[in-house]
Amino acid sequence: MTPDEARSRFAAARVARLATVDARGTPHIVPVTFALEGDRIVTAVDAKPKRSTRLRRLGNVAANPRVSLLVDEYGEDWRHLWWARADGAARIGEDGPELTRAFDVLRDRYPQYRTVELVGPAVVVDVDRWVGWSAAEG
Amino acid sequence: MTPDEARSRFAAARVARLATVDARGTPHIVPVTFALEGDRIVTAVDAKPKRSTRLRRLGNVAANPRVSLLVDEYGEDWRHLWWARADGAARIGEDGPELTRAFDVLRDRYPQYRTVELVGPAVVVDVDRWVGWSAAEG
Repeated sequence: MTPDEARSRFAAARVARLATVDARGTPHIVPVTFALEGDRIVTAVDAKPKRSTRLRRLGNVAANPRVSLLVDEYGEDWRHLWWARADGAARIGEDGPELTRAFDVLRDRYPQYRTVELVGPAVVVDVDRWVGWSAAEG
Repeated sequence: MTPDEARSRFAAARVARLATVDARGTPHIVPVTFALEGDRIVTAVDAKPKRSTRLRRLGNVAANPRVSLLVDEYGEDWRHLWWARADGAARIGEDGPELTRAFDVLRDRYPQYRTVELVGPAVVVDVDRWVGWSAAEG
């Protein structure tokens, strides 16, 4: 799969998994809603109940900006499996125009954000590598 | 969600996402088929076409044993969202009884492995933490 195709499949997905790493090298994964603009992925903390208000993904990004996001499709017919991955550098968008913009693109994409509040901060990822794989091409 | 419930939901899933980290702290994610025995998750390299024969997940585990695996369910009704995560220490099972056992439990679980060959090595994860979240409990 070409990088363009990986990017295109990623863009169409409704959920991605975000992997971050803490200062000791321990990984963490969480599912995220997201929006893609060019090669920038934005995701934001929303008011869905959380396990904790001190989110590990935020502490991890502050300690180590490298992140990886994955979209994949599973089915029992393995001839149709595929995945697309975005590797990049993340930063925390605490406030200002970048946070406003993140909320806008997320609300455009998810009607659920008409009722679920976006509270922030945002995680803004500049993707430097798109990678994908499809069983159909194997 | 209790650790037991997270473990139980994880066990029932058909696909998980495996996050590993390289020596420089860069994360990598890939979808994996898996089997769970007690608090041990096994996954193995199979003959599905790969992007490369030098798999990053194996190099990463050799450099840094900490891994995280995620199972999640997405749907447009966010009241039903949930995820379950396993954090643990991984090692590579190159051969011997551990590799044979990994192949056996994976073949039991996935009829697809009657036709798709398991080639190994296995990644064997001893889970030290089960964590889960469900919107329904929020």
